[in-house]
Amino acid sequence: MTVTHEVVNQAPPLTGFSTADEPALREALRRYGAAWGEPEVTALGSLAGSAAVQDQARWAEQQPPRLHTHDRFGHRVDEVEFHPAWHQLMTVAVEQGLHAAPWTDDRPGAHLVRAAKFYVWSQAEPGHGCPISMTYAAVPALRAAPELAARYEPLLAARSYDFGLRAPLTKSGLIAGMSMTEKQGGSDVRANTTRAVPAGDGTYRLTGHKWFTSAPMSDLFLALAQTEEGLGCFLVPRVLPDGALNGMRLMRLKDKLGNRSNASSEIEYEQAVAWPVGEPGRGVRTIVEMVNMTRLDCVLGSAAGMRAGLRQALHHTAHRRAFGRELDRQPLMRSVLADLAIESEAATLLGLRLAAAVDGAQAGDAQEAALRRLALAAGKYWVCKRGSAHAAEALECLGGNGYVEDSGMPRLYREAPLLSIWEGSGNVAALDVLRALGREPAALDAFFAEVEQAAGADRRLDAAVAGLRKLTGELSNPERAQLMARALAERMALVLQGSLLVRHSDPALADAFCATRLGGEWGHAYGTLPPGAGLTAILERVRPWTPDAATRGGAAERTAAGVAAVGGAV
Amino acid sequence: MTVTHEVVNQAPPLTGFSTADEPALREALRRYGAAWGEPEVTALGSLAGSAAVQDQARWAEQQPPRLHTHDRFGHRVDEVEFHPAWHQLMTVAVEQGLHAAPWTDDRPGAHLVRAAKFYVWSQAEPGHGCPISMTYAAVPALRAAPELAARYEPLLAARSYDFGLRAPLTKSGLIAGMSMTEKQGGSDVRANTTRAVPAGDGTYRLTGHKWFTSAPMSDLFLALAQTEEGLGCFLVPRVLPDGALNGMRLMRLKDKLGNRSNASSEIEYEQAVAWPVGEPGRGVRTIVEMVNMTRLDCVLGSAAGMRAGLRQALHHTAHRRAFGRELDRQPLMRSVLADLAIESEAATLLGLRLAAAVDGAQAGDAQEAALRRLALAAGKYWVCKRGSAHAAEALECLGGNGYVEDSGMPRLYREAPLLSIWEGSGNVAALDVLRALGREPAALDAFFAEVEQAAGADRRLDAAVAGLRKLTGELSNPERAQLMARALAERMALVLQGSLLVRHSDPALADAFCATRLGGEWGHAYGTLPPGAGLTAILERVRPWTPDAATRGGAAERTAAGVAAVGGAV
Repeated sequence: MTVTHEVVNQAPPLTGFSTADEPALREALRRYGAAWGEPEVTALGSLAGSAAVQDQARWAEQQPPRLHTHDRFGHRVDEVEFHPAWHQLMTVAVEQGLHAAPWTDDRPGAHLVRAAKFYVWSQAEPGHGCPISMTYAAVPALRAAPELAARYEPLLAARSYDFGLRAPLTKSGLIAGMSMTEKQGGSDVRANTTRAVPAGDGTYRLTGHKWFTSAPMSDLFLALAQTEEGLGCFLVPRVLPDGALNGMRLMRLKDKLGNRSNASSEIEYEQAVAWPVGEPGRGVRTIVEMVNMTRLDCVLGSAAGMRAGLRQALHHTAHRRAFGRELDRQPLMRSVLADLAIESEAATLLGLRLAAAVDGAQAGDAQEAALRRLALAAGKYWVCKRGSAHAAEALECLGGNGYVEDSGMPRLYREAPLLSIWEGSGNVAALDVLRALGREPAALDAFFAEVEQAAGADRRLDAAVAGLRKLTGELSNPERAQLMARALAERMALVLQGSLLVRHSDPALADAFCATRLGGEWGHAYGTLPPGAGLTAILERVRPWTPDAATRGGAAERTAAGVAAVGGAV
Repeated sequence: MTVTHEVVNQAPPLTGFSTADEPALREALRRYGAAWGEPEVTALGSLAGSAAVQDQARWAEQQPPRLHTHDRFGHRVDEVEFHPAWHQLMTVAVEQGLHAAPWTDDRPGAHLVRAAKFYVWSQAEPGHGCPISMTYAAVPALRAAPELAARYEPLLAARSYDFGLRAPLTKSGLIAGMSMTEKQGGSDVRANTTRAVPAGDGTYRLTGHKWFTSAPMSDLFLALAQTEEGLGCFLVPRVLPDGALNGMRLMRLKDKLGNRSNASSEIEYEQAVAWPVGEPGRGVRTIVEMVNMTRLDCVLGSAAGMRAGLRQALHHTAHRRAFGRELDRQPLMRSVLADLAIESEAATLLGLRLAAAVDGAQAGDAQEAALRRLALAAGKYWVCKRGSAHAAEALECLGGNGYVEDSGMPRLYREAPLLSIWEGSGNVAALDVLRALGREPAALDAFFAEVEQAAGADRRLDAAVAGLRKLTGELSNPERAQLMARALAERMALVLQGSLLVRHSDPALADAFCATRLGGEWGHAYGTLPPGAGLTAILERVRPWTPDAATRGGAAERTAAGVAAVGGAV
């Protein structure tokens, strides 16, 4: 063995922490009437930061799923095989109800609690969040077919993860997916060519293909296909009630930049048996219900990625010395860290506010439904768009170590663009803001009612709100409006974030946000806060744990308690 | 075989183009007195865009190098095995003189021509640019030891790629690397612990380690090690003159986010034989010569990545229809594409201007040397920092297809952060701007002399120059100056880019640059150009080739001519 030197001045491994380590998270639960969820969120956060789960996340990513088109005897099987770590992560997610709990829980704030749990658990491993989100989103869409909902919803909502190709009604729990995108259409689902032909018994037969079908081992899919009346939404089970495989062939798995633990596939439907969900010609309207729920998870997932990256950057810079002192005591690095922290907290607050709006909308609050309509589109655009830049900067805080896969930073960086692309890429989301403004004037009123709760608290915010009001009045020319759609969506998200921060975050953090994001005192990269920014207060706000506690006894105790509290699911 | 549908509305493969397809490139060669290089640049660009080279790039990345620490009999061998495609790429790069040509070419503009060729060739495959850049950069550093330079420079400059572990002087051409970074030190090389002990015969023995040594199969390394007089720079050959392996053990290869075709290693020196380069206590000063050359290549590499991403985005959006028309005819997508184009051209112009300054500096022009000192630090910070965001947005232009490795976009996205990190990460580069300002006042004069050549042409540029003058006068407080270092470096790079664009680019492109990057009419994501921007002119400026020509006869003919012109090196 070669030992020419002692290894010093490297950060210790970051493990045994809690991903629920932010005051912003706790405060939001209390603010929106969901304090009852705090113990669950805390326990799941400790589990997410445990060494065991971090190992599972690593295995699931490094041993990605494999497609078996045929068995060894030559029979077509269309199976996807996952590493056991994937199933362990899925088991926790389902036992925790991240896939459906709010649909069977009448307590106020059930969607918010689920969002907070999704946020802390996504920080452990983002890939398996895909089938979890789709199942969560499928339930309300499926309710457009009450008979199907009555049959399947209890199993979709069950806290049992039961993997494998078996007839749905024979399983103890089901996972659902979404099958929309085709090669020639992409976001333009009306260009879809998959045909649905009535079989005469109430079912249809689907023939065609899908270009991106994530989590193809799910039990049920909501799929779009053309009928004589136009695009319809259909329920397609992987396995038919008699146990035979449905006509859904997996052509290949996508070799993706990130999200590698999760399988995304290209499929072909060959006379696949399908049940209509909603009216045949109104498939888009039906499935949009689902897309709106998954878009919320895109925002939460992006916020989770930012928090995870920030945590690593804080940890590394607290332990690494250069040029005579720790990196996190050096002015420019502190400005970078604080800037990352501001963006992270702004993303988290916005995501949780959107989740609270889902609760409100579900409870019949029209104002909250209208707010959600507009703010979700703007939030999906902006928070997800910022994910890559945030991940790149957090990665760079670790220097060359951050560029090596071992550090976990590449995983965050590779994952980030996905959340900006799927469920509607940046342009689709920005144009959806225009659509909401055009079709639902109440949405803009609800939006301003929300942001103006902070009126008078910060002059830059007030000016930005006034500017936004003016901007929304200049959209009469459609081409000009489209040209401005990204700027508008960005402005809208920033104003809402600013309003939330001014009301609910640390004053120094809110002040620096308003100065930079709203007041123009910002560069086009992180680390360009104005010299007067309250860096110490900002960094204290986002660092409630100390490096000592994270690497020594305290955090380990917290984790042990967390593991116990979630019932030893791992 | 399952065929349920016809595949339509996907872009055709983009191949048989030229990476030298920009007017900006041609114009810069002529402007800075290097028109003689145009045929070489054109031919190499056509080769870079050929199907054969694209295949090599894919193989080199997908079959990354493997480390063999021992042979099958148990002998320590410390060899790295590369895919043949890597060697093919290296062969072209060396035959083209990208690794050293300017050091043996007295024609004016030799560094600029080499930079232009590095830029077009990097668009084919960025990973092998690492050893090529290091060899280019090693030559001037090695000249601090005239005897060693006399011995090795002819072989470093030779146009022969001769791979393998053999005594340097028995080979027909040599590749050189750089070995600085240690675990505990990183950018802080003065914390290095590797020791160099005089052997009494003029050589030294090195013991210690290096944490990042790229291209460990290079023949020669410039390494930093501690002597009694302080940090010294040393020449370390992999193989000693008698053919024995030097005491340089490869511990493992880095599992990197990108740059996967290239090997980056952790090494240990066990009594490695080394020759001093320059005075023992002045190693940093010696090796900084080398770092300055590789930093230029970081800027050029980032610009190349942007151009490659832009080309793919233009190609895809020209061929893909959604919602009734091609994506590149839709207002918001046009704004995104034009915004990406502006950034790409600004990066290219800055990189080429820096290369011209190297020519000037080498010819003894003090003004050009001073300009280069400051502008290179600012350019390294800004252009490399923008690489990831640009790659993410270009990737998103392809939607889900862009997230799949097949598309080539993930490769660009994964590569980008590296260029921002190595040779000094963002903070190091930004603080280097402060250092240059403090130590070399002539640099600031040279900088303003350059940018003010555009004085009066654009009011936003004039205002930005005035603002920058003011800002540079506010740096007396060191902590405050450090806090402002990123904002300052960004501003400096933008002002220089603005000045170059106003003078040398399309008026609409320059106008949109000044409005957005200097005039404040910009969001914090691409696609937020003001509605009045001249999108058509901007897109015409960057799209000299037509999609038809790129996929049909014209481009194929150009490529065939290009392949012939570079001598069938592939």
